[in-house]
Amino acid sequence: MRKIDVVQNVLEANDTIAARNRDLLDKHGIFAVNIMAAPGGGKTSLILQTMAQLKGNRIAVIEGDVASTVDAEKVRNEAVDVVQLNTRNMPESCSLMAVMLDEAIKDMPLDNIDLLLIENVGNLICPSEFILGEHKRVVISSLPEGDDKPTKYPVIFTDADAVIINKIDFAPYVEFDFAGFRKAVEGLNPNISFFEVSCKSGEGIDEWCSWLLNESKSVTGHA
Amino acid sequence: MRKIDVVQNVLEANDTIAARNRDLLDKHGIFAVNIMAAPGGGKTSLILQTMAQLKGNRIAVIEGDVASTVDAEKVRNEAVDVVQLNTRNMPESCSLMAVMLDEAIKDMPLDNIDLLLIENVGNLICPSEFILGEHKRVVISSLPEGDDKPTKYPVIFTDADAVIINKIDFAPYVEFDFAGFRKAVEGLNPNISFFEVSCKSGEGIDEWCSWLLNESKSVTGHA
Repeated sequence: MRKIDVVQNVLEANDTIAARNRDLLDKHGIFAVNIMAAPGGGKTSLILQTMAQLKGNRIAVIEGDVASTVDAEKVRNEAVDVVQLNTRNMPESCSLMAVMLDEAIKDMPLDNIDLLLIENVGNLICPSEFILGEHKRVVISSLPEGDDKPTKYPVIFTDADAVIINKIDFAPYVEFDFAGFRKAVEGLNPNISFFEVSCKSGEGIDEWCSWLLNESKSVTGHA
Repeated sequence: MRKIDVVQNVLEANDTIAARNRDLLDKHGIFAVNIMAAPGGGKTSLILQTMAQLKGNRIAVIEGDVASTVDAEKVRNEAVDVVQLNTRNMPESCSLMAVMLDEAIKDMPLDNIDLLLIENVGNLICPSEFILGEHKRVVISSLPEGDDKPTKYPVIFTDADAVIINKIDFAPYVEFDFAGFRKAVEGLNPNISFFEVSCKSGEGIDEWCSWLLNESKSVTGHA
């Protein structure tokens, strides 16, 4: 009898395709960011605010969702290109995977893109297992979700490069221990960057975008 | 070459174990409810409010989480019995599965329980695939998540018996189209029940608990 470790094989295949995606992006000087959050955490709003702040930069967007084109429709006016990926009928419907990014970038105008923002499926678990070929991984945590998310979903914070604490405009209405939250995240990942923003008011978006441009420059050589 | 449809096999095995769980629960007159929501939607708060409202009933709780015992600690003073299930190292870490419920109820004092509240892992995707053996499936959607969740995560609403719209105390601070939300859910699932609650203030909890007792009575013969 042979025992096949399916999960391990899937992850290995994913990593191979992710490396190929990364090479393709690098070849075209594209800086790619994987944006992850729970449903309703503010992924699309962050993308819209980022595009407004970085107007003039050539930004493309990939929208991952189980179903619908709601988010792609919201961003399509501002982006160089938008691709909606619906995962509903795919075996791993709870996350984007490298093979889906491969499919999406195939027909994108890669020479006209400097920054690729990839909105993952709304989920704090599955996306932590699958790298896509992105340069940076960002997780959004919003105030109404509560401050205990790093303790309950540790892996997604362990592997991220930045955490965005969103919906800070809710601070008067919810209890959220900012210091405790940061401490819990730093316990998992000491080198992670933090940003406190409101994607509603735009507060803190400038700082986040400065970080994005700096990181892009260090990867691609251009801002 | 043989092609094995792993996903299909997993789901069939799950359904078999779920049926066994259901038989065991029925034998002991236990009414079981599977509570599903995005991270931070208010699953634990709903359980706490339900236990407060139904004081005197014999309630047990199963807490599903990727990691930590945060939620089990919150509910343990009020429940007949509490089991924490951590899915971190399991193959399907993004949802509870029937085999996990089987494991959990094995050592519970089943003759002393009337109502079993099962808090699923915080996720709007994976839990829709796995029945556990529960009698009713409930999904919580909270105002700060936005009103587009039925469109983006349709399956979990399609298979649920009730939707709880939580955090209605946020109504002054967020835009949430109650009528549009209901219409989208009813488009997926015309017979679903709706409850509007605030697990913070307790508003609407009485109506939800009345439904729960009625449904329990129709299944077990006792309230």
